[in-house]
Amino acid sequence: MPVEKVSLAEKLGQFSDRWSPKIVGSVGDYDIKLVKLEGDFVWHSHADDDELFLVLDGAFRMDFRDRSVDVAAGEFIVVPRGVEHKPHAAQPCSVLLFERAGVINTGDAGTEARTVAQPERI
Amino acid sequence: MPVEKVSLAEKLGQFSDRWSPKIVGSVGDYDIKLVKLEGDFVWHSHADDDELFLVLDGAFRMDFRDRSVDVAAGEFIVVPRGVEHKPHAAQPCSVLLFERAGVINTGDAGTEARTVAQPERI
Repeated sequence: MPVEKVSLAEKLGQFSDRWSPKIVGSVGDYDIKLVKLEGDFVWHSHADDDELFLVLDGAFRMDFRDRSVDVAAGEFIVVPRGVEHKPHAAQPCSVLLFERAGVINTGDAGTEARTVAQPERI
Repeated sequence: MPVEKVSLAEKLGQFSDRWSPKIVGSVGDYDIKLVKLEGDFVWHSHADDDELFLVLDGAFRMDFRDRSVDVAAGEFIVVPRGVEHKPHAAQPCSVLLFERAGVINTGDAGTEARTVAQPERI
């Protein structure tokens, strides 16, 4: 199978739902996902997995228990394993995620309305 | 240690050498690297590792033995393990790499002038 490139803009144009990561590529046992944020997410952590958030468009705020970090387009943040965090986006924000395949968006918060156990591959 | 964000533009402003990846973050046993391309690289492959190239600025051409793929800003390509490839950039091009820590830029081509056995962390 020939190696194909992927356009982030083209993939972002394929969905509009919030907080629902889509898999757009894989590197070893890690996935590249795209997700659109808006509003407030749930406090959670991932016991065994670091998680990278790279902002493609817009901005969001990553809340930690002791502080917050504003992350804008062209910036990324890596949330270390075990660290509680809660993304918040006052406006719509498009983010690229790098994380191990199988990491679930709501982590140790368990299953709730926005839990995506198996992200769609687009 | 508090979790800090990283600005890609700020990191890209810290170096100008070509073909010399810099580590700007880590996720599990994978590294996020930035590299500036210009001109022609060496044919090589990585026996056990997929390698992601996300173009941040400019464009480059990924040559494979049977075809080429042009990759521009906002696009990425994942080169599967074992697949021979050779990046070529007619103009300067800034790329984000996502690959397992320890992957060496010249792969199975062995040590040559542009081999970076241990990328600098910036």
